[in-house]
This record gives sequence, structure tokens and C-alpha cells, in this order.
Amino acid sequence: MEMNIALLAGDGIGPEVIAQAVKITDAVAIKFGHEINWTPALTGAAAIDAVGEPYPNETHAICEAADAVLFGAIGHPRFDNDPSAKVRPEQGLLKMRQKLGLFANVRPTFTFPSLIDKSPLKRERIEGTDLVFFRELTSGVYFGERGRKDNGDTAFDTMTYQRFEIQRLAKKGFEAAMTRGKKLCCVDKANVLESSRLWRETVQAMEKDYPEVTVSYEFVDAVAMRLVQWPNEYDVLITENLFGDILTDEASVISGSMGLMPSASLGEKTSLFEPIHGSYPQAAGKDIANPLATVLSAAMMFETAFDLHNEAKAIRDVVNKSLAEGYVTEDLAEGGKAYKTSEVGDWLALQI
Amino acid sequence: MEMNIALLAGDGIGPEVIAQAVKITDAVAIKFGHEINWTPALTGAAAIDAVGEPYPNETHAICEAADAVLFGAIGHPRFDNDPSAKVRPEQGLLKMRQKLGLFANVRPTFTFPSLIDKSPLKRERIEGTDLVFFRELTSGVYFGERGRKDNGDTAFDTMTYQRFEIQRLAKKGFEAAMTRGKKLCCVDKANVLESSRLWRETVQAMEKDYPEVTVSYEFVDAVAMRLVQWPNEYDVLITENLFGDILTDEASVISGSMGLMPSASLGEKTSLFEPIHGSYPQAAGKDIANPLATVLSAAMMFETAFDLHNEAKAIRDVVNKSLAEGYVTEDLAEGGKAYKTSEVGDWLALQI
Ligand SMILES: CC(C)[C@H](C(=O)O)[C@@H](O)C(=O)O
Ligand SMILES: CC(C)[C@H](C(=O)O)[C@@H](O)C(=O)O
Repeated sequence: MEMNIALLAGDGIGPEVIAQAVKITDAVAIKFGHEINWTPALTGAAAIDAVGEPYPNETHAICEAADAVLFGAIGHPRFDNDPSAKVRPEQGLLKMRQKLGLFANVRPTFTFPSLIDKSPLKRERIEGTDLVFFRELTSGVYFGERGRKDNGDTAFDTMTYQRFEIQRLAKKGFEAAMTRGKKLCCVDKANVLESSRLWRETVQAMEKDYPEVTVSYEFVDAVAMRLVQWPNEYDVLITENLFGDILTDEASVISGSMGLMPSASLGEKTSLFEPIHGSYPQAAGKDIANPLATVLSAAMMFETAFDLHNEAKAIRDVVNKSLAEGYVTEDLAEGGKAYKTSEVGDWLALQI
Repeated sequence: MEMNIALLAGDGIGPEVIAQAVKITDAVAIKFGHEINWTPALTGAAAIDAVGEPYPNETHAICEAADAVLFGAIGHPRFDNDPSAKVRPEQGLLKMRQKLGLFANVRPTFTFPSLIDKSPLKRERIEGTDLVFFRELTSGVYFGERGRKDNGDTAFDTMTYQRFEIQRLAKKGFEAAMTRGKKLCCVDKANVLESSRLWRETVQAMEKDYPEVTVSYEFVDAVAMRLVQWPNEYDVLITENLFGDILTDEASVISGSMGLMPSASLGEKTSLFEPIHGSYPQAAGKDIANPLATVLSAAMMFETAFDLHNEAKAIRDVVNKSLAEGYVTEDLAEGGKAYKTSEVGDWLALQI
């Protein structure tokens, strides 16, 4: 198969972890007889420095033309204490999501047997956890009208949803549930918010199309609690943009291995794959960042964007091997030898 | 001192746990020479059944005239699967908060040495945790304009804040920080929301009035993560209504003892005290519910509403004694003898 992949390294450790994912992806392509065309493009603080904006039109054109986008990380501390700066790396992220129509952010949370004791949660609470969030990513309060009134003394944001936006996100969730544990939890705040009531009535109306799926409706505050109490009771969770932002970050703590968690953002035409961790500027340029989450994002890409399951499995197998044999970066070394980012990448590519 | 206290038992286990708090409060009043006038009033599903609405005007008049309100719990499963029902118990709660002007919800989270292993989090992560949330309670997306458009296919809610609303909440937070660890964390989503940017600029402008307090600004998604990773790094957290709803529920998991966590809601004129747990309908009428959170809410009432610290301490001391001696309800019994709700209340009152 020929695959055109846009390569957005981004900021901080982004370029370093992306480089490893490219090595492994290329190795998989050789082994399975695929041809990969990588097209690098600028994004984030790197793009602001080069062309003055975080998601340039040229980058958008490259992403739109690609079959999939592999993304590193975005964000630079230089912008952190100035939330009202005119141009910010995060704006690039939001623009990218919206212009590419990446409406469904998919975040699996699972545990690695060998790493389970790194979690702040007790082993017996998290063993067997295998849940996945479908977070709506192109609507809600992130994209509603906002502004100031009364000479700046009043500020407002609008959380808004249209029925079709909920339907297409929920459809992804139901379909995933069918291939998994057949449980779907719709997370909302329907006891207060009108947009949540629209979520709930829309999902309720879809239940009949998936009679095998057991659907529950839970309030976001209750889920914030239960997620760290009994995470393994969840299977698929669907939710709106802001709730998803908060809950997926909370859920990332469960596994204790943020450096290993991949994610996908699905659109109608293209899809994007990225590690859930940030740009980790303190580690940038030191060749010490853990590349595994980005490598596992490449596995998600094979599976989700190209329906190539053996290729995805080949990547997951070598990642498990590196964990089992301790061929890992310093965050996972636990007193054993710590390998460099690039060394882990080389080793993984060789094992493919 | 003469104290006029409105007594809102509410639904489910509310009446049972409130009855115990009354016993202990009366015992404290006798011991310290105070006179307490209790005025019971209807609220929640109980009020809907009796007079057709969850926060009747008569109840409001009683609360307004009182020095403080002691509250049990609200909510009944009969309303749970019908979020659009015209009259719901939660509306009573929101109406009460708004009409009484209870703008600051204060939720301490701490651990009890004897119960620390009940937490889903590992002991070494939570030991020493002693944080308190100040959640804004009468504004934000809970009270902004909401509705439908496009024949019901579009729903919207408005998250709105005025500068003075942020100031009066933040003031409570700064003042609390001064009497505690002198650290304040402002939780927002200023990289996306205009209302969060108003929060951040308002709090930044107040920093100079509290030079001893170290202030940090963190995004709500990051806090959702760190709260369960390193809760003992936090001291005072201030945040808007919806973020506070989610994060305080998440934080309640830390102690592992939801049945012991009290809360206060402060207004300009009166204040309300309640356990953080819900109405727990499955246990209602069985005399098995843990009354300690409500009893500790009475302690908060003595301290916060009446500035009576010895009285508060007397209550906390007997609660600690009941935990140490195992005079507890079944949720805490751990194989030992489980006492009835009313037995625990009687015992505590006798110890005062
Ligand atoms: C950087 C920020 C705008 C973004 C979000 O809130 O969506 C991030 O937290 C995420 O979850 O990808
Ligand atoms: C019942 C509900 C409306 C309420 C809220 O969201 O404020 C509850 O969750 C709380 O935190 O007191």
C-alpha cells in the first residue's frame, strides 16, 4: 500500500519522539511491503517562529492532502504565562482540529502488567483496566462565541452543540463498543446544562440501533470520582469537548505511564495520531524523552487509518519486548540502565 | 450565645444523618452554654411531594432569617432518568444557592490516619494531604442563559463571570491561604476560555494584597491529573462553578472516606453546612448511613458561622474517638461490629 503521511513534529521533545516513530514505521513498511511518503510540515511555536502563525495554510494543505497525520507535541513555556498573547501555539492546535474536521478524539487507557505499580492507584483498583474515551473535539465551549462586556468586567463563553455533532461522535463510540465490551457510558451534566440534555436525548435515540450495547448515563462529577475508584468498570465513554479534556487527562494517571499513551483524532477525511503527553520542554534536545507513546500512536495509525492490523500488532509486540527487556528511557529505567531516545528507537526498528 | 439554625433534612438518608448532627450539636450547646433554636424546613423531593416545589418560599424565608443552615442531602432516584422533568430536586439546590447568595463552596480534603488505607490511592501519595477547594457557587455556566435553537437541534449554555464575583470568591481563598499553608492555586482554562482569562487577570491583580501567598495558575485538565498524583502539593484551590463541581468530587476520592467529608457554602449574610455525600437512597430508612460527615459539618458550622473554635474541636475530638475505638457504621466497620446510625449519634453525644 502507498501511504502519504504528513509529519508534524511540533515543539519541545516533539521532533525527537517523532523521529523514532518514523524509524519504526519505515521498518514496518519495509517488512510488510508498503511505501510511505512522509511530508514534514511546521506547527506550534516552531511555526510561529518561522512564519508567524502556529498552523500555517501550507501545513493545512499538506495535512489535507495526506492519508494521515502523525503529530508530536505542541507548546512552549515562553507562551505559558501570557494567556492573552495574540498568537499562541494552542491556537494552532484548535485551528488544526477544526479545519481538518477532527471531531473525535480517541484516547485508550490501559495498564501494562510490567508497569502497573507505577500508578498512584492501587494495583487491585486498576488491574484489567481497558477503557477508551471518545471526546468530541471540534465543538462545544472551545468553539462557541466568547467575549467581554461592561468594559471588560464581564466575560462569557458559549457551550453549544448541534444534534449531528453529537450523533457522529456517538456513532464512533457505539461502533467501538460493539468491537469491545459492549458497554457505553455517556458522560454529561444533564441535570444542569441544556447542551447535555441534547447529548442525552440524542444518544438515547441511537440506543435502538445498537441493541447489544448497554448504555449508561452518568454525570461528569460522578465520573470524575468513579474513574479513579473503579476504572475497570468502564469500557467506552463518550463526552463533549471540555469534559473530555478534563477526564482524559485524569484517566491518563490510571496507567501510571503517560509516556506510553497514544491517541487518535478522527475526521471524515483524514485522521491524526499523537502521544497524549505534552512538549515537555525541560527535556527537549537531551535525547532522553520516552518515544513509546508516539511509537504506539503510529500503531494506532496503521490500524485506524489504514486498517492494517498485523502492522499495528508488530509495533505493539516490539514495544512490549522493550518493556520486558528493560530497553527503555530513564523515566522507566527504575535503577536499571537508561537508554537514549534515539537508542530505543534504533533498537525497536531493528526488532521489527 | 443564641443561635437560630434552619434545619433542612432533605431526602434519602438526609433525615437520619441530620438527626445525629442535631443530637451532638445540642450536647455541645449544653456543655458550652449556648441556646440553639432549630427551625426545620422542607427541601428537595420531600418538598416537591409536600408543596410541589423543591425550595419553597417558606423554606427560603426560614433560611434567610437563620444564622446558619444545616443541610442533609437532596435527590431521589425517581427523578434520575428524566433530566428534563419540569420540577427536579436539584433545581431546589440551585435556587437555594442563588437566593441565599451562597457564593463560596468550601470543601476541605484531608486524610484520617486510621482510614488512609481505604483510599484507592497509595498511602505514600496521599499521606499529609490537607487541601481545601473554594468553588464559586452562584455563577458561571450554572446560571448563564441557556436554551435551544433550530427546532431543538441546537442547544447552548453560557458560561459567564463578572469581575466582582471572582474577587469575592478569590478573597475567601486568599484569606484561607493566610491561615494555612500560604499557597493558592487558581484553576482555570485560560488557554481557551475568555471567562478563565478574566479569572486569571482578576486574581493576578489581587496578588499584591497578599504578598505572603504564593500563587500558581494551573489549567483544569492538568489539575485533574495532579490532584490524584500528588494531592499533598496543594493547599488552597480556587475555581469556577463547573470546574469546582468536577474537581471537588474527584478530590473526595483521595481520603477514601466520602462518608466523613463536610462542606460549607458561604454567603454575605448566611451560610450553609452539609456533608458532601448524596442522599444515598438505597440506605434510606435503614439506620445504617454514616452520620460523621454531617456531624463534622456541624463542627464547621460552629467554627465558620459562629467563630466558636472550642465547640468545633469538641466535635472533631469525639469523631476521632469514635474512629479510634471503632464505634462506627458498617461502611467503616471492617469486620468489626457495625453500629447503627442512631447508636453512633447517641454515643457521640454522650462523649461530648
Ligand atoms: C492545549 C489545549 C488547548 C488542549 C485542549 O484543551 O484541548 C489540550 O489540553 C488537549 O487536551 O489536547
Ligand atoms: C446536584 C448538582 C446540581 C450539584 C452541582 O452540580 O452543583 C451537585 O453535583 C453538587 O456538587 O452539589
